[in-house]
Amino acid sequence: MDWIKTLAAAPLDALTRTELVLPQQANHYGTLFGPAALSLLGETAYLAAARFGRQPVVMAAARDIEFLAPVAVGALLHLHARVARRGHSSMTVEVCAALDADPGAPPQEVLRACFEMVAVDAAGHPTPLTARDGRLAPPPASPTH
Amino acid sequence: MDWIKTLAAAPLDALTRTELVLPQQANHYGTLFGPAALSLLGETAYLAAARFGRQPVVMAAARDIEFLAPVAVGALLHLHARVARRGHSSMTVEVCAALDADPGAPPQEVLRACFEMVAVDAAGHPTPLTARDGRLAPPPASPTH
Amino acid sequence: MDWIKTLAAAPLDALTRTELVLPQQANHYGTLFGPAALSLLGETAYLAAARFGRQPVVMAAARDIEFLAPVAVGALLHLHARVARRGHSSMTVEVCAALDADPGAPPQEVLRACFEMVAVDAAGHPTPLTARDGRLAPPPASPTH
Amino acid sequence: MDWIKTLAAAPLDALTRTELVLPQQANHYGTLFGPAALSLLGETAYLAAARFGRQPVVMAAARDIEFLAPVAVGALLHLHARVARRGHSSMTVEVCAALDADPGAPPQEVLRACFEMVAVDAAGHPTPLTARDGRLAPPPASPTH
Amino acid sequence: MDWIKTLAAAPLDALTRTELVLPQQANHYGTLFGPAALSLLGETAYLAAARFGRQPVVMAAARDIEFLAPVAVGALLHLHARVARRGHSSMTVEVCAALDADPGAPPQEVLRACFEMVAVDAAGHPTPLTARDGRLAPPPASPTH
Amino acid sequence: MDWIKTLAAAPLDALTRTELVLPQQANHYGTLFGPAALSLLGETAYLAAARFGRQPVVMAAARDIEFLAPVAVGALLHLHARVARRGHSSMTVEVCAALDADPGAPPQEVLRACFEMVAVDAAGHPTPLTARDGRLAPPPASPTH
Repeated sequence: MDWIKTLAAAPLDALTRTELVLPQQANHYGTLFGPAALSLLGETAYLAAARFGRQPVVMAAARDIEFLAPVAVGALLHLHARVARRGHSSMTVEVCAALDADPGAPPQEVLRACFEMVAVDAAGHPTPLTARDGRLAPPPASPTH
Repeated sequence: MDWIKTLAAAPLDALTRTELVLPQQANHYGTLFGPAALSLLGETAYLAAARFGRQPVVMAAARDIEFLAPVAVGALLHLHARVARRGHSSMTVEVCAALDADPGAPPQEVLRACFEMVAVDAAGHPTPLTARDGRLAPPPASPTH
Repeated sequence: MDWIKTLAAAPLDALTRTELVLPQQANHYGTLFGPAALSLLGETAYLAAARFGRQPVVMAAARDIEFLAPVAVGALLHLHARVARRGHSSMTVEVCAALDADPGAPPQEVLRACFEMVAVDAAGHPTPLTARDGRLAPPPASPTH
Repeated sequence: MDWIKTLAAAPLDALTRTELVLPQQANHYGTLFGPAALSLLGETAYLAAARFGRQPVVMAAARDIEFLAPVAVGALLHLHARVARRGHSSMTVEVCAALDADPGAPPQEVLRACFEMVAVDAAGHPTPLTARDGRLAPPPASPTH
Repeated sequence: MDWIKTLAAAPLDALTRTELVLPQQANHYGTLFGPAALSLLGETAYLAAARFGRQPVVMAAARDIEFLAPVAVGALLHLHARVARRGHSSMTVEVCAALDADPGAPPQEVLRACFEMVAVDAAGHPTPLTARDGRLAPPPASPTH
Repeated sequence: MDWIKTLAAAPLDALTRTELVLPQQANHYGTLFGPAALSLLGETAYLAAARFGRQPVVMAAARDIEFLAPVAVGALLHLHARVARRGHSSMTVEVCAALDADPGAPPQEVLRACFEMVAVDAAGHPTPLTARDGRLAPPPASPTH
């Protein structure tokens, strides 16, 4: 369980996962279908946000999603999410994805996105975000919700 | 087949579809999971773009995606997509979704998004967009790709 | 939100949706798998019935389902459902599907089906059907359930 | 591998399978969703027809589909298909489903359907049906295709 | 409903099902993807265990899973499960799968696995296994849980 | 793209991914369904093996799969795979999974498995394994295939 110790010691505001692009995620050209890519990006943002805070989270918005290159069925895709901003009840999660590359080869980024996630209470209303790392959000220069 | 005549007479730059939110699209709170909503929005944009042009299309970017209200499992969701801009080889597709409402009741918009779609040739490279309605893209005021 | 006004003004007894035939709905010949087509037809009937009445509905029977032509993966499929009969607690929903066609080209109908849907109460028992449009079922010439 | 000998000795015109009703096949009432039931029935018909003949088969029609009782998520469902008619290039497959019952208890039939399946060649055109059991179709009293 | 009588008379400790290998279960080489095969084997074990006992069951372990030959998309796969051991609260279920073969041809076994299933109460804790066939577990020579 | 550098510098014989347990992976008790867990474990093994070597890989066997504790829907699951043995044309991949834990809390291991993966050529036959890290397999003490 050494990997678990490594994982436990990892920063709580970032997360990496690797996925295989399956035929059921393809369009009829044999590449990753756009809507399936959106789903992968959103899941990764959700995972990072859910791990970061102590509350349930929901997705409030997404922006700047870019499909930089086609992704073939059978490809190994590395996805990375990072909590880039923590607000009073919301956070910004940046996600990007790169194809698996041979050692020494420069990695190829293929997907990029940015999500706003909101901490919610049992009734689904926004609630103050309590990060697991115990750090407070810096006082915002401009109002954020 | 009167509905087909109605459909054939409908503008080629817009498309409406109705979907049922199924349990397999839910998070564990019983509402539509964000990544599944992204997938629904993207599919609708893809359908509108594929119907609009004579070429295969792929998704190049998405922006301004907003989740305005939670959507319960079992809800009927109306999705609408419209080709808002036609460029040389790309087009902008706006998508929004509203819950089914009782007659007379004001509709509730729950999802909104904007997609850039690109016409591609067999090798997946951008190719001039030929709309099925035969109309040309207006000369752009500012460069678009 | 003009499309929503159009939708709200549309008759409550009919519904049109457009779907993309994805690889995961294909058989190993590259065409829409029969059971996946049945599922699409049934979903469309369910959507029309759920929108028509104020009660939950379940499927009681299906008949006269015809597969008129193969449907290729990647095709755009327009599906249309219409409440053709309203009874005391049940309704008949007719569904058909046609391939997306070029402007001016005659549409090709590929699927056709007929479903009996029943309004049910919370315990799942048949309950009188109350249509959202407020119109009563005509007194039946012959008994219907 | 005794079961394989039993299976090999079984008649080629019938087939039984057992399925578990999973949450992803449910509607939001916790019972098997109609369209998912249609898919299960169609798959069973396809399996029986594919095993019966030496050619690829496609679904041409379905009729007399009845949903006799709701099926709870978690239920064990036994499905049975039988080739009830063999024509020149087509066959009729009857399918029914019953809930798993305690020993001695009368079984409860919950689903019933009838499918027309057609043997096709590589181009998807109807082709004479050659049954694996080597028996010919009886000369039809009335024309069948 | 003769098949139901046959089924009711069948031993309660064994179960056969037939499945079609669909494109959505394939890897990008066109054969059954390993993880999808694991899922099919596990489902079959679950079905056999759920039919055998009167209690809910969960999977506790799996061992000796062998992939003996690749399985093409479109293949008909016969799966067989048998309760090979009944303990106080657990049972061992052996599963194997063979490709559908022409009459007279020797069957080809392609998958094999062994599962430990445990009867659980409503809280998910192990509970004594009561088989539907009313027979008791033989006193174990060595302790089993 | 710092994470990509971190990833590129990571050992090629291990891989960590994080997954969310979705309702569509649940049994009807609200916990991860055994067959879905098998699929997750197998996918993780496949990912590690595909990243490790330069050839396509297929699954040959699985053993010692243990379900140590139930996993609730909505849980964050960390999965880790490690190439524990490299043979001439095969490798052994060990996979385990733990629930996401609060900082400082001891992690809870919930799933464990061991897979044999084989490098194959275009025809699907075993082929010598060439690891991406360029290291050779140690001469085996006892024959391995």
